[in-house]
Amino acid sequence: MEPFAIGVDLGGSNLRVGAFRRDGRELASVSLPTDVSAGPSIVLDRMCEAVSSLHANVEGHRDFVGVGIGSPGPLELPAGILHQPPNLPGWDSLNLSKEISRRLSWPVWVDSDANLAALAEARTGAGRTLGLDSLCMITLGTGVGGGIVLNGRTWQGMRGAAGEVGHGALILNGPPCGCGARGCLETYASATGICRRAGQLGLGPDNCPDAAAVAALAETGDPAALTVFEEAGYALGLTLANLINALNLPLYLLGGGVSAAWDIFAPRMFCTIEEFSYVYRMCRPVRAGVYEPGKTHVGRAQLGANSGLLGAAMLPFLARNG
Amino acid sequence: MEPFAIGVDLGGSNLRVGAFRRDGRELASVSLPTDVSAGPSIVLDRMCEAVSSLHANVEGHRDFVGVGIGSPGPLELPAGILHQPPNLPGWDSLNLSKEISRRLSWPVWVDSDANLAALAEARTGAGRTLGLDSLCMITLGTGVGGGIVLNGRTWQGMRGAAGEVGHGALILNGPPCGCGARGCLETYASATGICRRAGQLGLGPDNCPDAAAVAALAETGDPAALTVFEEAGYALGLTLANLINALNLPLYLLGGGVSAAWDIFAPRMFCTIEEFSYVYRMCRPVRAGVYEPGKTHVGRAQLGANSGLLGAAMLPFLARNG
Repeated sequence: MEPFAIGVDLGGSNLRVGAFRRDGRELASVSLPTDVSAGPSIVLDRMCEAVSSLHANVEGHRDFVGVGIGSPGPLELPAGILHQPPNLPGWDSLNLSKEISRRLSWPVWVDSDANLAALAEARTGAGRTLGLDSLCMITLGTGVGGGIVLNGRTWQGMRGAAGEVGHGALILNGPPCGCGARGCLETYASATGICRRAGQLGLGPDNCPDAAAVAALAETGDPAALTVFEEAGYALGLTLANLINALNLPLYLLGGGVSAAWDIFAPRMFCTIEEFSYVYRMCRPVRAGVYEPGKTHVGRAQLGANSGLLGAAMLPFLARNG
Repeated sequence: MEPFAIGVDLGGSNLRVGAFRRDGRELASVSLPTDVSAGPSIVLDRMCEAVSSLHANVEGHRDFVGVGIGSPGPLELPAGILHQPPNLPGWDSLNLSKEISRRLSWPVWVDSDANLAALAEARTGAGRTLGLDSLCMITLGTGVGGGIVLNGRTWQGMRGAAGEVGHGALILNGPPCGCGARGCLETYASATGICRRAGQLGLGPDNCPDAAAVAALAETGDPAALTVFEEAGYALGLTLANLINALNLPLYLLGGGVSAAWDIFAPRMFCTIEEFSYVYRMCRPVRAGVYEPGKTHVGRAQLGANSGLLGAAMLPFLARNG
């Protein structure tokens, strides 16, 4: 009897629910709009109805392990309490674990979407491909998120705030960031940062409405668009150099929409890692793109936009037997 | 029958051997010069003779758990192989674990001195006082070392290079560092960095022969000496901001000789952490110097120069039963 778990990816726009087997194979899934304006109580009711209905569809004679929830941050862990989440206005101080457990009769686990994307890559994505169960994943989306997996488990830190690699001291005189600091990675390598910088360099919203358009322009050799991705690659390289020196993990992954521009920003990123991280120089793979044991690998995530959902479904399996 | 273990702190100048109980109480210890010029084989012979002789003195009817060795880096772990250690010239490629195991009839464990200082603080120092078993310790000595303890165990990383927080991208146009990068923490906050910067600001070797003399001068209000420690505090603040955002640990400790100047550099350090780390702003203790659960604490290490030796002696206990 193959066990299965249900994962939920609670996004600010969409709410996705999926049933998965331990190996990451999807059995069924459903997606519905989050409708934040309806308020948390109604959104949570709908979410839990979707979970129950998916469970009824999949159940048959299978062994059900439980429900894992991936939430946007800031999420206090292990309590599962949201603190002024920018993508879920009106959800401040909501105890997600408690509210969902109250509505469902199955065991429920909660973690942040960025941590769960990293967990999914470790268990069923790039980490599994390479046989590595410790990694750091940086998600370059509207903002920049980060997740750290050590020995197959997410490292949440004391209150769930670990992995905030999109912020901190990087380019000290850089542009102001929403977090209150200046020159954070997020101001250079998020989709928002890419568009802001493109605008400053004269690429207007008509020809560059989004980060993908800036990337497409860079591919044609446009100098301003290339500068934007050079700067993103530099900021990513600095961030990775510090993480490599501090953690000495075998694998660092980039995911999210902006990571599709890998070929444009990666050369500058690797030069910068090389310049600032002597741990990288010590453990640099000899051939790019080929796995070598004991070396530091920096590459692209494998699972795409589904990774948060998949990681959420991994939580019940992890809780059951690692 | 109280069990005991023997720890060895293999320094470039001195070799210390101590017998400790699980709670960190010292039973006996001995210190001898390392005499690097004699070559690794003779130094290791003498080290192992000192271990055996200490064991014979302490043994009585006690239960002996094994031998832990703290070594300067770079040390490849878990193999225990030295790679061009600057403080042990001539020891390149030496397999420390194997060479010591060959000479002793007891089980032997090896870790880096910086990791073991952090472990000792977690188990018998500041971490134990506060009931915290995850921390990062930065040792400000001739160089800057770092060690990370997660859930009571050292985080060695893939090859033992984790915790290199003294290096990496920090002040991008700063002075060149021995590691090959520029503006590393080590160039500002190590004893060497303090003296170099003092020299640049006109404080000669006569009135400032070492970092302690620069600190003493700063205490009298000397503007140049104060600048040196302002810069050190700033670099420490940037480093800690990044670590706090990435790891969200409950405790960060500063040890080593330069940390004695805490009162001079700490104000600038805390302002800088505050400016660059929003995780710190989220988890800032309300009252300085008082422990509050769920908050980020940055403070001084408790154990002093003995911490590496003590941490080495903790390794056999950890291996036996955590």
